[in-house]
Amino acid sequence: MKKMEEDDRNKETRKLDPWGSMLIEDYKYLIDEFGIDDFNELKSHYPNPNHLIRRNIIFGHRGFEPVLNAIIKKKKFNVLSGIKPSGPFHLGTLTTAWEIVDFQKQGGTAFYCIADLEAYEDNGIPIDESYETAIDNVADILALGLDYKKACIYRQSKEERVKDMAFEFSRGVTLNMLKAIYGVREFGLYMTAMVQVGDILLPQLEDYGGPAPTVIPVGVDQDPHIRLTRDIARKFKKYNFIPPAATYHKLMRGIDGSDKMSKRNPMSYFTLNEDPKSIKKKLMNAFTGGRNTAEEQRKLGGRPEICNIYDLYKFHFIKDDDELKKIYKECTTGEVLCGFCKKRAVNIVLEFIENHNKKKEKLIDAAREILE
Amino acid sequence: MKKMEEDDRNKETRKLDPWGSMLIEDYKYLIDEFGIDDFNELKSHYPNPNHLIRRNIIFGHRGFEPVLNAIIKKKKFNVLSGIKPSGPFHLGTLTTAWEIVDFQKQGGTAFYCIADLEAYEDNGIPIDESYETAIDNVADILALGLDYKKACIYRQSKEERVKDMAFEFSRGVTLNMLKAIYGVREFGLYMTAMVQVGDILLPQLEDYGGPAPTVIPVGVDQDPHIRLTRDIARKFKKYNFIPPAATYHKLMRGIDGSDKMSKRNPMSYFTLNEDPKSIKKKLMNAFTGGRNTAEEQRKLGGRPEICNIYDLYKFHFIKDDDELKKIYKECTTGEVLCGFCKKRAVNIVLEFIENHNKKKEKLIDAAREILE
Repeated sequence: MKKMEEDDRNKETRKLDPWGSMLIEDYKYLIDEFGIDDFNELKSHYPNPNHLIRRNIIFGHRGFEPVLNAIIKKKKFNVLSGIKPSGPFHLGTLTTAWEIVDFQKQGGTAFYCIADLEAYEDNGIPIDESYETAIDNVADILALGLDYKKACIYRQSKEERVKDMAFEFSRGVTLNMLKAIYGVREFGLYMTAMVQVGDILLPQLEDYGGPAPTVIPVGVDQDPHIRLTRDIARKFKKYNFIPPAATYHKLMRGIDGSDKMSKRNPMSYFTLNEDPKSIKKKLMNAFTGGRNTAEEQRKLGGRPEICNIYDLYKFHFIKDDDELKKIYKECTTGEVLCGFCKKRAVNIVLEFIENHNKKKEKLIDAAREILE
Repeated sequence: MKKMEEDDRNKETRKLDPWGSMLIEDYKYLIDEFGIDDFNELKSHYPNPNHLIRRNIIFGHRGFEPVLNAIIKKKKFNVLSGIKPSGPFHLGTLTTAWEIVDFQKQGGTAFYCIADLEAYEDNGIPIDESYETAIDNVADILALGLDYKKACIYRQSKEERVKDMAFEFSRGVTLNMLKAIYGVREFGLYMTAMVQVGDILLPQLEDYGGPAPTVIPVGVDQDPHIRLTRDIARKFKKYNFIPPAATYHKLMRGIDGSDKMSKRNPMSYFTLNEDPKSIKKKLMNAFTGGRNTAEEQRKLGGRPEICNIYDLYKFHFIKDDDELKKIYKECTTGEVLCGFCKKRAVNIVLEFIENHNKKKEKLIDAAREILE
């Protein structure tokens, strides 16, 4: 019976919801199998939900109720996110950026972590070499709207409390737990996994404001990490941690139609530092939901559910719902074909990049100061 | 042919050498199997060898030649040792104490590490709780002769460079290496193993004097750790580390005749803080090399090679060789029996403890200042 209802809902979703995705079953699977809670249940209580919430891109959560409560009652809460300074700010990081910026606007105290220890362990980039990248990344997040005057932006390698927690909490895990969570990885990566636990719990240390609801907006692939940290937060009772909450967003596919964005496949994504010509090329080569022929498409309409240009609008570049609905309609009715739509995407994205870079230029000195 | 010579030498050693031990074969095995070098080959070049060297208690080394060279030519070298602040200073730690004190007298820059991260990971003692123990331990090493004005005494938990190296060098090891070296242990212990690598290499950082010969005096059971650190020192070329040297000393058996000193077996050892009555009781209960009857012993003589009272003299409490030789002779000729010898040991040890505590009292404030 339950199964039938689900199938109906999926069917309905697929048919009617401009925010839906063909992949929604996968996310439902995560909710059912891994105990991630459905964000829909909280959505109606959420004041001023951002485009990611409205569009079900944020689809799940763990323990978000205390954070929601704090937002509604205008009480203290934290939001923590970060970036690995292994290269320029890219499309994949953008979702989390909107989230931390929005949670800060909702009244959260923002913590932004430069994961330079992870860039070292994972990518072999020495701390001093990732420093310039880190400055560039910070300038990006500031240009995207993070108010640095109200945020704590720090480098893992320089934040002793984070490293100390990594050592302390390592007594709360076993090798088998780490293997189960991360698979068989290099030893150094397990060590940085513990550093990340320290990052997530940092906002709740007494010197940083003490125990308070804290949300970590992440891609759903980061859930094991959240579970590990919630487990440790409960184990080390003396800190009185509130187990950190997470919101889970869907992951974008590669814009070229590959399963996911990957540095190994430059056509699958672009960075905010990228040459406009290169971005244009990637967009014009994007995998869309178009039909075999123009004629067929005019007749049957396009399929935004599997279209990566549509995903770009939906995730990042068109935040007005009415505008997005219009595009959805134009596509599904066959009124606008992919060629036109791609050119429109190029214009929208390049305008965004141009504006972004103008803001960023003015913030690069601030970024440098913050990290020094 | 080689085998025969060795057998002859062992036989000879067993017969004639008052510094010999029935267990010398085990140590030879280590030399043969693990590539530890025989210290005998350097001994004749060593200026003013201490009682541990003279008596073959220090029997092996790795890469000690540059250190010896520095001693002879009065050039810069370092010595590093440490203590886990999980309890009072005890008999087992005393050997290393004589060694660091002596290397400092030979001109070495001494580094003394309070392994409070290890006490936490291994024994679950929180850093703030092990602090008072650490002060007590430091007062002991100062009373034993370490000149704190010329030494760097630090806590692992407060030495950021050590922790940073633990993270950095973790990229130079694999889980399989750690398992091969330490066996299947808790994850936190692997992390502190990396901290110890940081400890050993700390003296060679630029801020601490730069690359220089460095010796770590250890019990032979610590060899795997030395090998790991030497391996890492070679891998991270940018530091120009000289692979740290080690000297290896024999381990004392438990004074009650058990295979080794162990906290689980309080009769096997005593601490420098212990009540004299308790020490006396342990010494009077010591396992000696006596014979079945007094008559037999007068006829055949005692066996200092298997006697734990004799070991106490040899390792710690009688540093004059002529005096020790006299005791050896008195024993092996059956002139002095175990009862008398034990009472003499009680007198010698309790006098040592009394003098030690007098010195220690005056140094407790200095110890506190050093760690603060």
